[in-house]
Amino acid sequence: MKIVVIGSGTAGSNFALFARKLDRKAEIIVIGKEKTMQYSPCALPFVLSGKIPKLEDIVVFPNEFYEKQKIQMMLETEAKTIDRKRKVIITDKDEVPYDKLVLATGSKAFVPPIKGVEKRGVFTLKEMRDVREIQEYIKERKPKKAVVIGAGLIGLEGAVAFRELGMEVLVVELLEHLLPTMLDKDIASIVQSHLEERGIQFRFGVGVSEIIGDPVTAVKIGEEKIESDIVLVATGVRANVDLAREAGLEIKRGIVVDEYLRTSDPDIYAIGDCAEVYDAVTGERILSQLGTTAVRMAKVAAENVFNKNVKFKPVFNTAITELFDLEIGTFGITQERARKEGIEVVVGKFKGSTKPEYYPGGKPITVKLIFRKDNKKLIGAQIVGGERVWGRIMALSFAAQKEATVEDIAYGETAYAPPISPTIDPITVAAEMALRRFK
Amino acid sequence: MKIVVIGSGTAGSNFALFARKLDRKAEIIVIGKEKTMQYSPCALPFVLSGKIPKLEDIVVFPNEFYEKQKIQMMLETEAKTIDRKRKVIITDKDEVPYDKLVLATGSKAFVPPIKGVEKRGVFTLKEMRDVREIQEYIKERKPKKAVVIGAGLIGLEGAVAFRELGMEVLVVELLEHLLPTMLDKDIASIVQSHLEERGIQFRFGVGVSEIIGDPVTAVKIGEEKIESDIVLVATGVRANVDLAREAGLEIKRGIVVDEYLRTSDPDIYAIGDCAEVYDAVTGERILSQLGTTAVRMAKVAAENVFNKNVKFKPVFNTAITELFDLEIGTFGITQERARKEGIEVVVGKFKGSTKPEYYPGGKPITVKLIFRKDNKKLIGAQIVGGERVWGRIMALSFAAQKEATVEDIAYGETAYAPPISPTIDPITVAAEMALRRFK
Repeated sequence: MKIVVIGSGTAGSNFALFARKLDRKAEIIVIGKEKTMQYSPCALPFVLSGKIPKLEDIVVFPNEFYEKQKIQMMLETEAKTIDRKRKVIITDKDEVPYDKLVLATGSKAFVPPIKGVEKRGVFTLKEMRDVREIQEYIKERKPKKAVVIGAGLIGLEGAVAFRELGMEVLVVELLEHLLPTMLDKDIASIVQSHLEERGIQFRFGVGVSEIIGDPVTAVKIGEEKIESDIVLVATGVRANVDLAREAGLEIKRGIVVDEYLRTSDPDIYAIGDCAEVYDAVTGERILSQLGTTAVRMAKVAAENVFNKNVKFKPVFNTAITELFDLEIGTFGITQERARKEGIEVVVGKFKGSTKPEYYPGGKPITVKLIFRKDNKKLIGAQIVGGERVWGRIMALSFAAQKEATVEDIAYGETAYAPPISPTIDPITVAAEMALRRFK
Repeated sequence: MKIVVIGSGTAGSNFALFARKLDRKAEIIVIGKEKTMQYSPCALPFVLSGKIPKLEDIVVFPNEFYEKQKIQMMLETEAKTIDRKRKVIITDKDEVPYDKLVLATGSKAFVPPIKGVEKRGVFTLKEMRDVREIQEYIKERKPKKAVVIGAGLIGLEGAVAFRELGMEVLVVELLEHLLPTMLDKDIASIVQSHLEERGIQFRFGVGVSEIIGDPVTAVKIGEEKIESDIVLVATGVRANVDLAREAGLEIKRGIVVDEYLRTSDPDIYAIGDCAEVYDAVTGERILSQLGTTAVRMAKVAAENVFNKNVKFKPVFNTAITELFDLEIGTFGITQERARKEGIEVVVGKFKGSTKPEYYPGGKPITVKLIFRKDNKKLIGAQIVGGERVWGRIMALSFAAQKEATVEDIAYGETAYAPPISPTIDPITVAAEMALRRFK
């Protein structure tokens, strides 16, 4: 069997590795535009800030690693057309026949049509070359004032990186608060204060209308002109679906796949940022576009290419980040989004400490849990705190994945030791708060 | 209604607080031997090491806090007899009538009948006065060589405290490896190496037969005499059941309760270290004797005293500790114990890193997962690593509490960010290892 993967990113590379684990003989070919196989796009802000010393380090494995596993790589190669009748991919160099095709074409940074957005000094932060270009620009021009457009994860991580490099930073967000798809306003405001205390400023509910100077010297927000000598555009990503669309596959916001990750053509799968998945809470098709989702889709698609019939479960989009010394973890639906979707929820919220009161070094932590009113199931969580947010979001996410109810959390077993956590964990208390509201 | 609680420790104090939340008017009386209400016994080793500066700090709330909640305290008072016919408790001072009685009599350190165990310089580490006595002894005699009898949690935490105070430390354990009820030998040996590198020595499969000198100057192991000027006996605890037994309640290793935490007398409940619970894996009655279990039993018993009919679920004994800079987390059954119980299991084990390879500061972590062969359910986990063990054991424990299978973990969603965790988490890989063995 000849399996061809288009895309050498996280989804494509992991697919190839999983597929090889499942079958020693199958021909596995990866077509990719870059010089290397997968690297970690989530790591780019940390290369920018200098926390990861070398850009090349974020390439997960050297090409030889894939060669040893007999994964054929056609790198620096662009797939131009899929001829589904002949089962052939036409690249800029060659024709590649396939038995099974896996689309892992990823996503690209979305750049809104702001006047002047093409000017020097305006960047996105999605690919390795973005970091190279930003680093060269910083070296050459030593910018002092940065504007970041968009207060999503990449925007905030980029803002922190700029701040850590010594710049004044202003984040401009069209919506009402930061991390608008991941957090509610009450929780976002905790993050905002934390970032403001560390010198990052915010403007919400407004957009940048123009970028002035070339290289950039300022941006315009309404009639106001704000000095800026570097601009990061972080307004989300869009699925790369052109190839799939031209091949006549079903597309909505991303490539449409069934629960086995097959597209409308049963010999073609789609995985990673380019493909839609099901939202575990709303049941709607969404673009998850998380690295973990890409890896998990790669695993399931590899199994299904070999006829294992594994279903890819709906996703909760469990996510974590660290901004300065604050951890932020989330999954599922926000209270704001639930309102829009008409889902009635019961919320429990608690601010506590990460350690028992008597143990030195505890840090504030706020836990917000969102339960469905009709069946009491945990459908969302937002946690912000100085440490051990990750563990709590992991625990709650695994509980939600197993359809835990408010009682399961309120009466659940936690792990306690004085240097690590309180006897009665903040997640337990938040669930108790919600439980009382159910009565 | 007049509710009387015997025992002012974690279980008793929390019961009183939960009961007050549920009913503003009920008369709630706590009879306790100490001067204060609950303190955290788990914190004692950390007071000893100096990490918690003041012993008094580990008292969770001052007595005024309970007074404000109209919880009547009869402290420095010993309950002598329960007259179930008259529904009266006879104390060393008074008679106290009750409508509902809650036994929270706790546990005491078990001291094996070693020759000389009563001598000066031999201590347990179970109560506040133990720490006071050890600290006075250390101040007065400046011991240089410590022997710890027992390599359970308290033994190891005590050994670390002694080591941090500058002593040479030898731990003597009758069984084959450290933390014998929580870990298998393969995982225990990682912990052992870590402690040995930091100057703690071990002897396994042997016991101390005699304590020499008064104050102690040495211990005997077989015919061998080992110098020692302080000895900690940490050979477990025993449930305090005398009062319940004399009252004619059903007793096995602890006070027997049903799933509503009622004893064989429907007006008497038992909670915390003195009461038996059901083991979530074996279904057997066990003594859990964890602080978290005590609190959780207190909550359920409080609800049931007010006729809420809440069942106390079987326990996995989820636990965590930190020894120097190593975190150790466990729950459920070990592979060794499963063998003894005749439970067939499939194991997945993986050694990885706590962060992606490209991110500086990742630490080794070993994950061992134990699944039932017949139904694939997760029934045990052991994790040892330099950081973020707690989050992983919390996530896995919540998953197990919701009856997660090997697939649920292998395909589960985790939260990933470069500074925090790898894209493919070690728990996922360990589950994949096990999954392959099922096939």
